Amino acid sequence: MDCQKGLDGVVVDQTKISSTANAHLTYVGYPIEEIASATFEEVVFLLWYKQLPDQQKLKKFRQQLVNKMILPAETIRLLLYIAKEPQHPMSILRTTTSLLGTTNDVEHDEPPKILSKMLTAIAAIIRIRDNEPLIDVDPQLSVVENFLYMITGKRPSSELTRMFSTVMILHADHEFNASTFTARVVASTLSDYYSCLTAAVCALKGPLHGGANERVFEMLQKIKNQQLDPVEYIKDQLAQKRKIMGFGHRIYKSGDPRAFILKKIAQKLAVETNNQAYYQIQQQLADYMLKKYKLHPNVDYYTALIYHCIGLKKETYTMIFAACRTVGWLAHIMEQRQENILIRPSSEYVGPQNRHYKI
Amino acid sequence: MDCQKGLDGVVVDQTKISSTANAHLTYVGYPIEEIASATFEEVVFLLWYKQLPDQQKLKKFRQQLVNKMILPAETIRLLLYIAKEPQHPMSILRTTTSLLGTTNDVEHDEPPKILSKMLTAIAAIIRIRDNEPLIDVDPQLSVVENFLYMITGKRPSSELTRMFSTVMILHADHEFNASTFTARVVASTLSDYYSCLTAAVCALKGPLHGGANERVFEMLQKIKNQQLDPVEYIKDQLAQKRKIMGFGHRIYKSGDPRAFILKKIAQKLAVETNNQAYYQIQQQLADYMLKKYKLHPNVDYYTALIYHCIGLKKETYTMIFAACRTVGWLAHIMEQRQENILIRPSSEYVGPQNRHYKI
Repeated sequence: MDCQKGLDGVVVDQTKISSTANAHLTYVGYPIEEIASATFEEVVFLLWYKQLPDQQKLKKFRQQLVNKMILPAETIRLLLYIAKEPQHPMSILRTTTSLLGTTNDVEHDEPPKILSKMLTAIAAIIRIRDNEPLIDVDPQLSVVENFLYMITGKRPSSELTRMFSTVMILHADHEFNASTFTARVVASTLSDYYSCLTAAVCALKGPLHGGANERVFEMLQKIKNQQLDPVEYIKDQLAQKRKIMGFGHRIYKSGDPRAFILKKIAQKLAVETNNQAYYQIQQQLADYMLKKYKLHPNVDYYTALIYHCIGLKKETYTMIFAACRTVGWLAHIMEQRQENILIRPSSEYVGPQNRHYKI
Repeated sequence: MDCQKGLDGVVVDQTKISSTANAHLTYVGYPIEEIASATFEEVVFLLWYKQLPDQQKLKKFRQQLVNKMILPAETIRLLLYIAKEPQHPMSILRTTTSLLGTTNDVEHDEPPKILSKMLTAIAAIIRIRDNEPLIDVDPQLSVVENFLYMITGKRPSSELTRMFSTVMILHADHEFNASTFTARVVASTLSDYYSCLTAAVCALKGPLHGGANERVFEMLQKIKNQQLDPVEYIKDQLAQKRKIMGFGHRIYKSGDPRAFILKKIAQKLAVETNNQAYYQIQQQLADYMLKKYKLHPNVDYYTALIYHCIGLKKETYTMIFAACRTVGWLAHIMEQRQENILIRPSSEYVGPQNRHYKI
């Protein structure tokens, strides 16, 4: 039997959302290098409705999203208990995403409301765990401004908003990655939006998927705090057969197009927030990995430093990834529903045969 | 590009757990018709460790499982809030499964503890929603006896325990069905057990998967309460292009081997609990579907009536399915971890090309 373990290269469906064909990332036909300069709301609209909005539609869409960045009082009440649980924030987000789908009025929740609630919930988890008061949405601000505001408690500068918008756009979708595929498998049973999203969060939590950015920062922190030589550190790790996080990608063999853009943002933010030491470590690691192993940094590599510069704790990095990727997950759930067929593969049984149970 | 939409017939991995090859269901080599007579604990042991336990091992394993059928006080405290939420019990179970993985001491939870906690949590959700007091585990009873006891508040007869053990065994595993495949995709990111299980619950919730047994009972109830003619009901539904729930299976074209066994249990319980009217409706529907469309009842068909006879409300049926299938999910998560490779398929982009974003 022909076994397609890992489904590497197996085309499971057609899509109109994003493409990584020929190692070029495009969103609905727009190269990532260009669309990264759009506003976040434009890209959400594009990924969901397959075209960019005109100015009027964009304004309306932005206001619609911002107005929905409010959680029911009951959800907040439960969140205050749940967010304090001692486990990893991604476990908390897993429970929270499910919880968003259990209050009274959720049956008819559509993607705009669901995305807005997810962003607010993620900001709330961060604030609650930091023992900080929750911040109310400001209807005058954009989605990204509100998201940063509700996390940090400070209204962000237009420059920071621009940079963070790009970060969010770059993480918004990546065709059939493991969490998106999970969301589509669940959607294929005709389960509800919140079930699909919860399952996607479950997959993103894994260290082989969304958990990598946190590990990148752990590595940088260790090198900096213990004043290790970056190249010696890598050699030592590889000698112990450990993986160096943040390098290489199944699809992008000549470099991840998102990492090129993120590198510039990381460099700029590192200077502004006096984190050059981390950036220099990253440079040395990247130079060595490229020269010695022809491996380029991937999307997680510079994101780790960017999140640190914004003041986020490393345990929260994967939640921020989830906040951005919720856009893509919702796009894929909608697409799966449009021409659905149950995703149900086969397996090859290789265990013992012809056993008999004696009563 | 060769598109394998739905992955029908695509072999994604080898397995030593169960097989449906040639439309014969076997658990680790034992035909389902024989192993259905084993005890539940024997089958759990078999699916997890690939052999039947001897008497000493079985006794020890049973006690281990029963002793762990206890939830942390903090989980119960939160469950009392969450279980009362107005949404479908499967949404509650989704949150609850995730919550089981966030208390203080869960990092080292292994399958026996996880299964036991799931069973107790499912019983607790049913009791809380019925405004009944929670029942403590009785260490003198078996796992199935305790599960029934904690749901109904009554210690079950040995006859009922035997029948319900068979029901639980028949639902315990079914190779790479949609929820099990979801669990394996999440496991392939190296995410934790509770994330894999939560995602599986998300998939099982879908009406094309675990949600079917509830729909079967809705149909029976409608026919009985409105005194409809079963055959006329089917004709009417099909004329409206509606699916008749509980019939047909992708794999079992000549009948689901589980349904043959379940039919006898349903018949017996229907007589004992004065539910013959439902059983007669089922007989008429099944005869017509077979004669007219060559479609046989599947696993969900008689299960619906069995659960009703036990006194369960139809909204809880899929949770009982989840309780049983947790055994298989855990077996598959363990297997996926043993020789893991990230499950990450490809897609074919068919949207617009060569668009450009003007800043």
